[in-house]
Amino acid sequence: MYKVDLNCDLGESFGVYKLGNDELVLPYITSANIACGFHAGDPSVMRKTVKLALLNNVAIGAHPGIQDLVGFGRRNINISPEDAYNIVVYQIGALYGFVKSEGSKLQHVKPHGALYNIAARDSKIARAVAEAVYKVDPELILFGLAGSELIIQGEKVGVKIASEVFADRTYQRDGSLTSRSNPEAMITNTNEAVTRVVRMIKEGLVKCQQGKDIEIKADTVCVHGDGKHALEFTSQIKESLEKCNIEINNFSI
Amino acid sequence: MYKVDLNCDLGESFGVYKLGNDELVLPYITSANIACGFHAGDPSVMRKTVKLALLNNVAIGAHPGIQDLVGFGRRNINISPEDAYNIVVYQIGALYGFVKSEGSKLQHVKPHGALYNIAARDSKIARAVAEAVYKVDPELILFGLAGSELIIQGEKVGVKIASEVFADRTYQRDGSLTSRSNPEAMITNTNEAVTRVVRMIKEGLVKCQQGKDIEIKADTVCVHGDGKHALEFTSQIKESLEKCNIEINNFSI
Amino acid sequence: MYKVDLNCDLGESFGVYKLGNDELVLPYITSANIACGFHAGDPSVMRKTVKLALLNNVAIGAHPGIQDLVGFGRRNINISPEDAYNIVVYQIGALYGFVKSEGSKLQHVKPHGALYNIAARDSKIARAVAEAVYKVDPELILFGLAGSELIIQGEKVGVKIASEVFADRTYQRDGSLTSRSNPEAMITNTNEAVTRVVRMIKEGLVKCQQGKDIEIKADTVCVHGDGKHALEFTSQIKESLEKCNIEINNFSI
Amino acid sequence: MYKVDLNCDLGESFGVYKLGNDELVLPYITSANIACGFHAGDPSVMRKTVKLALLNNVAIGAHPGIQDLVGFGRRNINISPEDAYNIVVYQIGALYGFVKSEGSKLQHVKPHGALYNIAARDSKIARAVAEAVYKVDPELILFGLAGSELIIQGEKVGVKIASEVFADRTYQRDGSLTSRSNPEAMITNTNEAVTRVVRMIKEGLVKCQQGKDIEIKADTVCVHGDGKHALEFTSQIKESLEKCNIEINNFSI
Repeated sequence: MYKVDLNCDLGESFGVYKLGNDELVLPYITSANIACGFHAGDPSVMRKTVKLALLNNVAIGAHPGIQDLVGFGRRNINISPEDAYNIVVYQIGALYGFVKSEGSKLQHVKPHGALYNIAARDSKIARAVAEAVYKVDPELILFGLAGSELIIQGEKVGVKIASEVFADRTYQRDGSLTSRSNPEAMITNTNEAVTRVVRMIKEGLVKCQQGKDIEIKADTVCVHGDGKHALEFTSQIKESLEKCNIEINNFSI
Repeated sequence: MYKVDLNCDLGESFGVYKLGNDELVLPYITSANIACGFHAGDPSVMRKTVKLALLNNVAIGAHPGIQDLVGFGRRNINISPEDAYNIVVYQIGALYGFVKSEGSKLQHVKPHGALYNIAARDSKIARAVAEAVYKVDPELILFGLAGSELIIQGEKVGVKIASEVFADRTYQRDGSLTSRSNPEAMITNTNEAVTRVVRMIKEGLVKCQQGKDIEIKADTVCVHGDGKHALEFTSQIKESLEKCNIEINNFSI
Repeated sequence: MYKVDLNCDLGESFGVYKLGNDELVLPYITSANIACGFHAGDPSVMRKTVKLALLNNVAIGAHPGIQDLVGFGRRNINISPEDAYNIVVYQIGALYGFVKSEGSKLQHVKPHGALYNIAARDSKIARAVAEAVYKVDPELILFGLAGSELIIQGEKVGVKIASEVFADRTYQRDGSLTSRSNPEAMITNTNEAVTRVVRMIKEGLVKCQQGKDIEIKADTVCVHGDGKHALEFTSQIKESLEKCNIEINNFSI
Repeated sequence: MYKVDLNCDLGESFGVYKLGNDELVLPYITSANIACGFHAGDPSVMRKTVKLALLNNVAIGAHPGIQDLVGFGRRNINISPEDAYNIVVYQIGALYGFVKSEGSKLQHVKPHGALYNIAARDSKIARAVAEAVYKVDPELILFGLAGSELIIQGEKVGVKIASEVFADRTYQRDGSLTSRSNPEAMITNTNEAVTRVVRMIKEGLVKCQQGKDIEIKADTVCVHGDGKHALEFTSQIKESLEKCNIEINNFSI
C-alpha cells in the first residue's frame, strides 16, 4: 500500500501577534513543523503548539530559520556553513526542551524559508544542516526538497531523510520549484494539485514546466493552514489521498 | 572530607562582541554556566564555549536569562511564572542541543541576573523555574542562592538542588545578598573572602552585615573570570580551598 | 466651544504580522500614535502608517515603548531615567525620519504601555521622558495620563502637554486608572462611556470608583481600533461628542 | 589647496559590550559615522557618542546598517529597495534625535557593511539609499565608495555626495575594493598607504591590482580606530597629509 506524510508549518505566532490556524489544520496533518523563535515563534507559542500537536497525535518537528524576525526568515542571508550548523543545533535543542518537558519526542527537522531554499542548492550549507541534525540525534528525520542538494548531502552524512513535495507548486526540469516570481509557480486548481500529488506518490513522477516527466520521491507533502482556502485545499488533499488508498501517516508509526 | 564546586558564568560574548576570559578561568573552575542567547551568547559562542568546557573537563550548565540583550538580562522585568517556565525550558533545550551534539550531557541550570534575583524572592517564579528544570530532565541540578525561595521551591518540586554562595559578597540577616548599591556589598580583600568561604563550607555559617552568624549551605561557590583581578581572586580561592583540604569538584563525579 | 482630540495607537504590525485596523479607525480620529519599532512596528510599517495618517489628515505622534517586542512593551522593566530618556529620543527621531521624508511634521509623543504607566507614577522616569521630548523639539506635545506624574513633570520641564483621558476605563480616587486585573476596570456600556467623556470635557469631573467626583482634564481621549467592537465604540464616541457640540480636532489646527 | 575629510565608524558598542576606542580616535578624524542600533549601537551608546563627537568638534553622520546585530551588519541580506529606503530613513531619524537634542545637526550618512557593499553595485538599492537620504534632508551628504553605483545614483537623485577612498585597501580595475578573501586586499605598510592616499587626493589616481592607474575621487578617507595598530595608522595618515599641505576638514566648515 502507498503511504505518505502530510506536514504543515505551525507555531508561527509571536508575542501578541497571531498567525495561522493551528487548531484547525492539525486534524488534517500527520507532522507539524514548529517554528523555533528565530524567524517566528516564541517560547510561549512553542509550548502551546507542542501541546496542541500532541493532543492531535501529530508528530513534532523543529522548523529552524535564520535570525530574521522582521523578514520572517524568508530573505536570503549569506550565512556560513558554521552559522547554519549552529543555528540548526540551537533551534532543534530549544524545541526539544518543550517536547521533552511534555513527555514526548522529536520526529523530524525541516529548515524554514531562506534556509530551506539555500540548503536545497548550496552543498556546503546542506551538509552543515544535515550534520547538525545528525549530531543532535541520529534518529531525527531531515525533511528536504525532493531531489535537492539537502537530500543528497543528507544521504552522505547518514541522517535519516524524507523527500518533500509540494502540492500547490510547479516544478522545473531540474526538480527545483518554479520561483514564486513566475506567474506559473502556483497550482490553484485543487483537482489538478491532487492528481499531481497522487501521481508523485504512486508513480514517482511529475510533469515539469518544460513539459517532460521528471522523477520525484514523495515521502511527505507540504500543506498549509493559513487562510480559508488553504484549509479547504488541505482537507481535500487528505480526503482525495485516502480515496486513492494512500495511507496518510507520519514516520513515527 | 569537605567538598565544594566552583562555578563561573561563561559564553557571554555575542557576535563580534567579546566578553570575559573563558579560556583563562576554565582551569580554575569545575562547573560552567553557559549563556543561552537571551541576555548574552549566540549559537556560535555557545558551541565554542561547550567545546572549551569539555576540553577542560568542566561540567556544563545552562545559564538562562530574560530576553534583554541590551540590558544583559540584569534589569528586572515583570515576567509571569508561565514566561519564566517557558524561557527556562527553551534555553536549557538550546544549550542541550550543543552539549548533545558534542557527545556530552548537561549537569545543571543556573538562572542569570534578574531571573536569578527574582527567583530568589518570588515563590511563584521560583516554582516555575524549578518545574521547568525538572520537567526537561529530573537529573539536572538547579543552582540557586543558598536559603532562597528558589531552593525552597526547588525542594518542593523535587528537583536536585545545589546551594550557591558568593565569595565576594556580603550577606544580610535574612540570607539575601547585600544590594550592590550598598557600599558594603563587595568583599575586596581576598584573604577575608577566602576565610569566609572556608567557614561557609566547613561550619555552614557566615557573619551577616548585622553582625550575627547565620546558617548557610555552600554546595557551590560563584567565581568570576572577567578581568585580571577576578582571575587572581579565583585562582587564590581555589588554592586556599585545596590547602584547607576541601575537595573542589562538580556534581558529575 | 468645547474641543477635544481623539487619539489612537496605530502602526502596531510587524513584519508579516498584522495588528489593528488602521485604515478603518483613521476616519474617526484626529491624532495617531505610531509605534516606533521597540514594542511594535518596523520601518516599513512606520512609513506606511505615516502615509495613511497624512492621507486622512490625522496628526502624527511618536509612540515610543520599551525594547520588548515579545511582550509588546507591556511588561514593566526596571529601566533607569537615562534609559527612558535615550529610548524616547531614539524613537521620536526614528518616526521623525518618516514624517520628514513625507514632507510633514510631528505633533506629539505618547509613551506606550509599561513606559506610559511607569511615567505616570515615577517622577524620575516622568521627568526623563518629558526632557527627552522637549530636547528633541520644544514644539512637540507630550500626551500623558491626566493628573499623573508625567503631566506634573512635563509642566516643570516646560514641554507642551496634553492631558489624556480614557473613555472605556474607570478611575481611582487618586486619578489613576483602575488596574485591568480589577473586574471593574473597563466600561463596556457605550452610553455610559460617552456620558462620562462628555462630562470630563465639559465639567472637568469624573466619578471615581470610590464614588466621589474627582477633577480631570480632558485634552485628548484615547480610543481603540482593534476589533469590531472597538471600532463601533470609537465611531459612537465621535458621533456623540459632535452632537454635544464638542469640536473634535487635534492640536495642529 | 587640497582638502580631504577623515571619517571613522564610531559608537559600535552595545549594552555591556564595548567595541572600538572612540575617545582615542576622535582627535584624528573630522567626520564620525555613528552606528544607529541595527547592526551595532544602542540609544545609550548613540547619545554618548554624539556628545563625544561634539566635544571633539567632529562632524556627525548616521551609519545605518541592516537589521543583523549578531552578524554586525556584515552578512549580505537580500533586502528589497523598499526595505533599504525604510531602514535608512529610520536610522537617520534615530540619530537625528540625539544630534538635535544635543543642539547640533547631522552632516552626512554612510551606509554600513553589507548595505554599503550592496549599494556600491546594485543600482536599485543604491537609488533607494540615495533617495532616503535626500528625502529626510537634502542638505545631508551621502558618503559612498568612489566611482560606485551609490555615487552614480546619488548624483541622479540629486543628493549631495562625497566619494570615499580607503587607505588600507587595494583596488580592482573597475574601482571596486579587492575582496577581503584575497590576500592582497589589505595594505599593511603605512608609508605605502599614505603615498597612495596623497596621490588619490592630489592626482585623482590610484594603481589598481591589475597594474594600471585608474581614476578615483577622494573627498573623504575611511580610517579605523579599533586596535593599537589602527590608531597609529590613523595618526600617521593625518600627520602625513598635513605635511603634504593637504587640509584635513569635514564638509560642515
